[in-house]
Amino acid sequence: MTKPLRLAIAGLGTVGAGILKIVQQHGDLLAARAGRPVEIVAISARSRSKDRGVDLSGYAWEDDAVALARRDDVDVLIEVIGGEDGPAKATVETALKNGKHVVTANKALLAIHGQDIAMLAEENGVALRFEAAVAGGIPIVKALTEGLAANKIKRVMGVMNGTCNYILTVMEHTGADYADVLRDAQELGYAEADPTVDVGGFDAAHKLSLLAATAFGTQVDFGGVKIEGIERISLTDIKDAADMGYRIKLLGVARMNDDGLEQRMQPCLVPATSALGTLEGVSNMVIVEGDHVGQIVLQGPGAGEGPTASAVMGDVMDIARGLNIPTFGRPAKTLTKTQRSTTGADAEYYLRFSLADETGVMAAVSTTLGEHGVSINRMRQYDHEDDMAPVIIVTHKVSRTKLDNALGVIAAMDVSLEKPIAIRIETV
Amino acid sequence: MTKPLRLAIAGLGTVGAGILKIVQQHGDLLAARAGRPVEIVAISARSRSKDRGVDLSGYAWEDDAVALARRDDVDVLIEVIGGEDGPAKATVETALKNGKHVVTANKALLAIHGQDIAMLAEENGVALRFEAAVAGGIPIVKALTEGLAANKIKRVMGVMNGTCNYILTVMEHTGADYADVLRDAQELGYAEADPTVDVGGFDAAHKLSLLAATAFGTQVDFGGVKIEGIERISLTDIKDAADMGYRIKLLGVARMNDDGLEQRMQPCLVPATSALGTLEGVSNMVIVEGDHVGQIVLQGPGAGEGPTASAVMGDVMDIARGLNIPTFGRPAKTLTKTQRSTTGADAEYYLRFSLADETGVMAAVSTTLGEHGVSINRMRQYDHEDDMAPVIIVTHKVSRTKLDNALGVIAAMDVSLEKPIAIRIETV
Repeated sequence: MTKPLRLAIAGLGTVGAGILKIVQQHGDLLAARAGRPVEIVAISARSRSKDRGVDLSGYAWEDDAVALARRDDVDVLIEVIGGEDGPAKATVETALKNGKHVVTANKALLAIHGQDIAMLAEENGVALRFEAAVAGGIPIVKALTEGLAANKIKRVMGVMNGTCNYILTVMEHTGADYADVLRDAQELGYAEADPTVDVGGFDAAHKLSLLAATAFGTQVDFGGVKIEGIERISLTDIKDAADMGYRIKLLGVARMNDDGLEQRMQPCLVPATSALGTLEGVSNMVIVEGDHVGQIVLQGPGAGEGPTASAVMGDVMDIARGLNIPTFGRPAKTLTKTQRSTTGADAEYYLRFSLADETGVMAAVSTTLGEHGVSINRMRQYDHEDDMAPVIIVTHKVSRTKLDNALGVIAAMDVSLEKPIAIRIETV
Repeated sequence: MTKPLRLAIAGLGTVGAGILKIVQQHGDLLAARAGRPVEIVAISARSRSKDRGVDLSGYAWEDDAVALARRDDVDVLIEVIGGEDGPAKATVETALKNGKHVVTANKALLAIHGQDIAMLAEENGVALRFEAAVAGGIPIVKALTEGLAANKIKRVMGVMNGTCNYILTVMEHTGADYADVLRDAQELGYAEADPTVDVGGFDAAHKLSLLAATAFGTQVDFGGVKIEGIERISLTDIKDAADMGYRIKLLGVARMNDDGLEQRMQPCLVPATSALGTLEGVSNMVIVEGDHVGQIVLQGPGAGEGPTASAVMGDVMDIARGLNIPTFGRPAKTLTKTQRSTTGADAEYYLRFSLADETGVMAAVSTTLGEHGVSINRMRQYDHEDDMAPVIIVTHKVSRTKLDNALGVIAAMDVSLEKPIAIRIETV
């Protein structure tokens, strides 16, 4: 095992540059820990001349990433191009077919094509690793597939998009509206010009679908994730939730129910004093519940040059040491076809009603809730705003179906001035 | 790799029984994930007849754990006997010499003999793994040696003894004294009849010395850990620290300074709103700072049947999959001899003075601090208690030497009614 492990990097954006820096700075450290040298031999990107703040002179250059994936002098292809199709997919597939291990940070690619690509890796006897694709620098894939491998996983959940958590926590601390905070986040580089992939929950849902497959031994089923973004979260709800002891997070939850896999990426309330409730800014947090280990919490930077490059290189180090476990922790061909849970687990809900300021209104609402099997745990009515009385209710556990039936009836009442808001409270 | 991996368990206390339960419950799951069956073939304990709530009939029995370690039908010896010498050490050494992999939960054994035993494992070409020895179910050793393997580690720290964290958090919440809370903890089974190993900081210091070796590539140096227990932490300090925005934790910190390795296990103040500050009850938390990844926080149950057995079996699963990386993340013979840092990093300190209620007293104290280079950041004087004025000071960063010099002078003053208290504030 003293033969060098030879790397090729496809894509020299932020993460690619970060990988170059690690290998250039830590050559001795990597060799000491891996028991063999770890070297970059070739690279590829769209522009050769762009200044990336790092010396590229020692590496062979390929204009075409697919050509990089075919090189005879490469053992591991690192794909940090991004995108669910196009050059990223072609490069990864070419590398695997040519017997090269692949390490990727590409969550979209794996969320859509993970099953096929993992099988391709196995057919060719090489590793396909994706630690960097989920929650940046946090070694959560390793924890799930290896450290906690003796547990039946009961639930995996977490905050997996730093942009959303930044926006929600800044809204709470500054009292600024969603649109204003989003604009600031864009100026600071925490959000893209088109923020849809982040604030719409899609980026985080990609990650959740990968964790779910890993945790439950199911085929990756991105299409089965119920996705709801943070665009409609109002400052009012953030404040009222806080007043009831909660914070709002874009929370991903995957759980195996009796009727199948539940995957949700949606705004949820969590207790303000819980680990999730205390998570600030762009950090990520993933919580794993195993039947023997109990609850394990992992927190750290979910994106950025250093953390993502660290995760890529963690996978590379495993390969350097000869570790080749299946992509999702068991052979891809044994991953079971995902049955989607149609109901989802019961939950408590936070409800906000905007009611007409009339006698008997509260009675009508509570009666309707009760008639549909929705039981009230706590309730607060706030000062009237003009002729509207805001009422906040925390329910006991109830099915979403029963709740939606009740809210439908209430929404149709004359006294309901706005559509009722319902946000799930996740037990943590 | 379809040949079964055959395990032997030496020691059938809580953890041993937990391992039996996992293998009995999750046979199919383990085989699916490992790609081969994982089976227990033989066991050993002091009493064969004791009811452990688990069926032992399918396993060969050895009265002598050392005989267990010699059996031809065993691939992995799991040592959960405990103790730094005696049968545990003999069993582990015998197993390694006989070409068996060893997984141990024994922090004391490795803290004292880790260097020699890891070298013995390498000489015999087998794995020696110890995830369960540090922070129970939290996969921190794996994170350090593998997931974060591309980082130069800057600091590793954490709360690694659940008993101490339980006592400190209950003192804060109930206002009960140390002695009372300790007695309750003993009745609840959270503390031993002789609690010294826990409350004296020794158990946690064992763990810290193992993490430090892993993080910094140094030989295990338990003797180099500066250890201070929680026995002298008063309710007054817990309350006054809270009033200044801090909580007191028995905190382990390992850091590589210019003059060598700093290892401390001592009560420290941390910001109440930090991850460490919010840690309640018997939970453990370890924070790793890497030069590229930044700060990663891992939290979970630090002890108990399920979590510890989960960690043992995580190591077993690695071995089943063919992973054999060196015990401390690089070959034991390459671990550098530890130079101990003589000074330690500068820090802010919390100081509590009990001063005579006389004019000019505060001036004398602040002048003395200033003369010794100790700069005051914040100060609070509380209501007098009889003729004593309690004064709390938070300093700016200063060396412990300068601080001790100043405190020595102040302690000798007539106006100093009690020995000044100084507790380090760890920046997190």
